[in-house]
Amino acid sequence: MSAIPGYRFGDPSLPQPTVDGSGLAQLQAALLMTEADIRLLRDAAAIMDPHIEELLDTWYAFVGSQPALLASFSTPSGPDAAYLGAVRTRFAQWVRDTLRANFDDDWLAYQDEIGRRHAGAKNQTDGVRGAPEVVPLRYLIALIYPIFTTVRPILARGARDDAHLDQMHHAWLKAVILSVSLWAGAYTRPEWF
Amino acid sequence: MSAIPGYRFGDPSLPQPTVDGSGLAQLQAALLMTEADIRLLRDAAAIMDPHIEELLDTWYAFVGSQPALLASFSTPSGPDAAYLGAVRTRFAQWVRDTLRANFDDDWLAYQDEIGRRHAGAKNQTDGVRGAPEVVPLRYLIALIYPIFTTVRPILARGARDDAHLDQMHHAWLKAVILSVSLWAGAYTRPEWF
Repeated sequence: MSAIPGYRFGDPSLPQPTVDGSGLAQLQAALLMTEADIRLLRDAAAIMDPHIEELLDTWYAFVGSQPALLASFSTPSGPDAAYLGAVRTRFAQWVRDTLRANFDDDWLAYQDEIGRRHAGAKNQTDGVRGAPEVVPLRYLIALIYPIFTTVRPILARGARDDAHLDQMHHAWLKAVILSVSLWAGAYTRPEWF
Repeated sequence: MSAIPGYRFGDPSLPQPTVDGSGLAQLQAALLMTEADIRLLRDAAAIMDPHIEELLDTWYAFVGSQPALLASFSTPSGPDAAYLGAVRTRFAQWVRDTLRANFDDDWLAYQDEIGRRHAGAKNQTDGVRGAPEVVPLRYLIALIYPIFTTVRPILARGARDDAHLDQMHHAWLKAVILSVSLWAGAYTRPEWF
């Protein structure tokens, strides 16, 4: 884990999470996330683990194909390969962490940190200069769909049957939406979050 | 249409949309929305039209069952039935409009207006006093999931086959995510949107 530059899951020096356990339970209820979904995420973890780099290849090809997305990783000199690479290692770890999340305070505190790194604290972790100051909120939300749909072919390789595939896929969608809903807190005033 | 209090789709006195046609095309590309999805939304419109009130019954029962969601419609005296009712008529019309959206400037301007009505301009349309000042951004995003999953049994009534059902259901998910991504603009500073 410590081999991933800028990875701070479990770092006790992170600020206290914005949402506490009770607030998280309310948010999970709002998106119909149950204990069954958490078991399904564990099933998905076992299937997806050997294929995370393939998934990141897909996502990076997608981002690279769309100038409006690639812009977040670009400086006036063009796409910043070092920046893209540093984010990629943490992005892969986010997949693993999401599939195994126990949704405790360490998890919540790191979601806040991920949110800040898309908003006002973008570029700081990797010491990037000249890239846009934020990932636009509209794209943070829009990317829920590609992050959701692209995992299905991988889940299909290990699903017991079509119902299991659908259930794992929906559990993943809920987990992605939950992540984005927490990350969005860095974009608005606290009392509007 | 004019029978729906506060409904302003197409009202030329709304502010110019935040996102222009080119920005919308980039956002649609980010969530993989294509012309095929728009045709699928039209298929879904024909199937869902007779069942919109049933869908709203489901959604309102869901909101009513969760204090954290019902709070947005409540004053110190409890849930505000008139407010809930007024929002419901526009919510139903939003479903119809989304399924038939042509994504022009009128559509964009009204998405901005819907965003404002969840954020800083909440309560104004219906003259509500004493309800919370905003719908929290975290819930605006989290509700993507229930708004997505609950339409499936209705779509199943008219789908040609399972593939058509899946395709319509995904087109609806994209349209919901697109709506929320635009509404979120009212929660953040313009340069972060």
